[in-house]
Amino acid sequence: MEKVRGILDQNAFSMAHIDKADARIGALVRKRLETVGPTSMLFYEEPLHIVRGERVWLFDDQGKRYLDVYNNVPSIGHCHPRVVQAVAEQMGTLNVHNRYLHEGIHRYAERLLDTLPRTLNRLVMMCTGSESNDMALRLARGWTGRQGIIVTEAAYHGNTAAVTEVSPSSYKQGTPPDHVHILPISRMSEQADPAAWFAEQVRFGIEQLEARGHGCAALLVDSIFSSDGIYADPAGFLKPAVELLQARGGLFISDEVQPGFGRTGQGMWGFSRHGVTPDVVTMGKPMGNGFPMSGLAAREELLAVLNTDVGYFNTFGGSPVAVAAGTAVLDVIDEEDLMANATRQGEYFKRQLQDIQARFEEVSDVRGAGLFLGLDLCDPTRDGAPDAQRTTALINDLKRNGVLIGGAGKSGSTLKIRPPLCIERSEADLFLDRFEQSLRTTAR
Amino acid sequence: MEKVRGILDQNAFSMAHIDKADARIGALVRKRLETVGPTSMLFYEEPLHIVRGERVWLFDDQGKRYLDVYNNVPSIGHCHPRVVQAVAEQMGTLNVHNRYLHEGIHRYAERLLDTLPRTLNRLVMMCTGSESNDMALRLARGWTGRQGIIVTEAAYHGNTAAVTEVSPSSYKQGTPPDHVHILPISRMSEQADPAAWFAEQVRFGIEQLEARGHGCAALLVDSIFSSDGIYADPAGFLKPAVELLQARGGLFISDEVQPGFGRTGQGMWGFSRHGVTPDVVTMGKPMGNGFPMSGLAAREELLAVLNTDVGYFNTFGGSPVAVAAGTAVLDVIDEEDLMANATRQGEYFKRQLQDIQARFEEVSDVRGAGLFLGLDLCDPTRDGAPDAQRTTALINDLKRNGVLIGGAGKSGSTLKIRPPLCIERSEADLFLDRFEQSLRTTAR
Repeated sequence: MEKVRGILDQNAFSMAHIDKADARIGALVRKRLETVGPTSMLFYEEPLHIVRGERVWLFDDQGKRYLDVYNNVPSIGHCHPRVVQAVAEQMGTLNVHNRYLHEGIHRYAERLLDTLPRTLNRLVMMCTGSESNDMALRLARGWTGRQGIIVTEAAYHGNTAAVTEVSPSSYKQGTPPDHVHILPISRMSEQADPAAWFAEQVRFGIEQLEARGHGCAALLVDSIFSSDGIYADPAGFLKPAVELLQARGGLFISDEVQPGFGRTGQGMWGFSRHGVTPDVVTMGKPMGNGFPMSGLAAREELLAVLNTDVGYFNTFGGSPVAVAAGTAVLDVIDEEDLMANATRQGEYFKRQLQDIQARFEEVSDVRGAGLFLGLDLCDPTRDGAPDAQRTTALINDLKRNGVLIGGAGKSGSTLKIRPPLCIERSEADLFLDRFEQSLRTTAR
Repeated sequence: MEKVRGILDQNAFSMAHIDKADARIGALVRKRLETVGPTSMLFYEEPLHIVRGERVWLFDDQGKRYLDVYNNVPSIGHCHPRVVQAVAEQMGTLNVHNRYLHEGIHRYAERLLDTLPRTLNRLVMMCTGSESNDMALRLARGWTGRQGIIVTEAAYHGNTAAVTEVSPSSYKQGTPPDHVHILPISRMSEQADPAAWFAEQVRFGIEQLEARGHGCAALLVDSIFSSDGIYADPAGFLKPAVELLQARGGLFISDEVQPGFGRTGQGMWGFSRHGVTPDVVTMGKPMGNGFPMSGLAAREELLAVLNTDVGYFNTFGGSPVAVAAGTAVLDVIDEEDLMANATRQGEYFKRQLQDIQARFEEVSDVRGAGLFLGLDLCDPTRDGAPDAQRTTALINDLKRNGVLIGGAGKSGSTLKIRPPLCIERSEADLFLDRFEQSLRTTAR
């Protein structure tokens, strides 16, 4: 089994840089480590102290503003007043678990299920994408009686014990568990026929898992492959693999935590670009624009698995307040026509980034759909090898330059461009301008 | 291994009763099942449609009010305006993950850690008690290199794959996994020396787990034993067991999701009544009075385990909004002196319930601490056998009578009395009066 490396720490602050940090930042970092400790990860060589957010902007404690092309939780814009108002009103009226009847949950579930294939006819509401993927794994294993799971090589699906096993980007050492097969998605760009190649990789994975005695319960992928470095094209490349998998009785779990809720511009969900019908759809991050909520959609018979051996209940999931937040998000996506904006601005970003690619040899690829784009950095002096160091330098220089961005990919050499869906042309231009500046500043 | 039965469905609505339900309730139930489906559990023979909450009161869609002695999430009172305001203000200012610096999280963590033993010097913030216990299991297994866990026979610790394994109350069939040892806490009331008996049970559990090759990583208990039926006395009964366990290198995980944040009246945490120092403390439910948040406190070296093999990050955990909600809860507990009220009203409840016990032979025991009380129902005509049927009848009759209450315990014959901490004497009297009425109404 190929060894994989952890990429969760990409753009992580290191205490090695503490002495270079501004005194006020250094003091806050120390306070943070003294209270929150080892699980506390901070971004940037010198961490940021953010105090306010609005639309596509974040502001630090000195009043400096940053264009946010990183955060995909506040997907309809930071501190959107519709969500704030909906949450405040409902919290002042009723906030209780869902073992009492509440019309909000039916209405929300109906509306959300309407955006999904008809076979996905039931919605479970939970609090985090991790909880959703944890349940998805249980459903797949309970339904198929098999244990094996196929995931991509730098995938991140969440943080519970079970989900960490299928999140190679969280591994810091060692090899994947025996029941996890790793699909080398980063090799897809070399393939003449990506769809056929992907299907062949899934077929190989199924056989490997069967040979090891686990069988294949599910293929679990983020349908935009965010942590892997964003693989969106050609649309439809997932289809032959999913058909093969389903024909062999495995489930296709589409993790929509990242691409869901309109980010790709072409519909609410990332999988729809591929013409496939998942057995399970998991969702989270942008679902409540920052209110902690998540969901899982599946057909009723599949969910019944959870009621055979064990019971299931989620204390905060599907509360009237979660439903109010989720409803406000759907309202804003419709009313502000955010999917159309994601398509329009996404195409503009892509075109302009391709233009930059033509002018800078260190930019080796631009990929993506809607407002989820990946841009690869390479070192032309080293035969175009992936350049993680340059990527980190760019991320930190762009921060100094007032732009927040992150990295991704197996080699850590992909910039992840993922602004709030309400970003406007002038703001896209500001990003492109600053990005080109930082490319020059960080040139070797 | 003794077979255990699922009790998560206690007081669950059954579709067998749909035809007896009011037409408007029946229509809502059907809508619910058509959207949320199999994982949707509803309370009561005829479910309730709740539309508003305030302090200790919930109101249904007909304007009928119910005294809430069940819900322990809105622990400082339903819709407390301080929490609503804190959440609304912070949501309108900044709501983002914690990989940027934010002073709120340090201040909150410092304040919360100040209420815990000094060895528990770091706080991880997550979203649900399930996530906290899932992490606690990983810490214990990572630290000890062992897999076995000791839990009580009707415990509930959460809903992830890993935590469900150690939650016997969720099992509907089958036996516990081989690495889980079940401690028969319901037999404690028969023991002359409960502390010595509990320690002996833990010693036996450690040996069983060692004999089966797993070793004992941790004893995981809810320190008020909520789902088991509330075992609070004698205070200190956990101490010999915890000392024995820790001497053998196992970790003591105190699940404070239920007793934490002042409910027992005698301090912020249930374990403090026992004079023990946990290795890990998990918390949830009342932490944000309904805002989805949870935590885990442990010493720094132990948390470092999580950073060796894998990385950890929680998207919504420790956001400025979660911290604002949590801070408001701590403020209200202090300012409204809710722990003193929990002690005062709890003692009153207990005294009055013991008086009822003296007058009704079907009330066989009253147990608890502060505002977490358990009352056992038995059938005097059947040699005092536990009476789950009577318990269910009482729960439903009390609902008709305007009081919300739940059940617990291995045999489902314990009433769980757990009102918001702000309950007043007149409201306690109302409960006692209605309870006595329902005891008469449901007499066989």
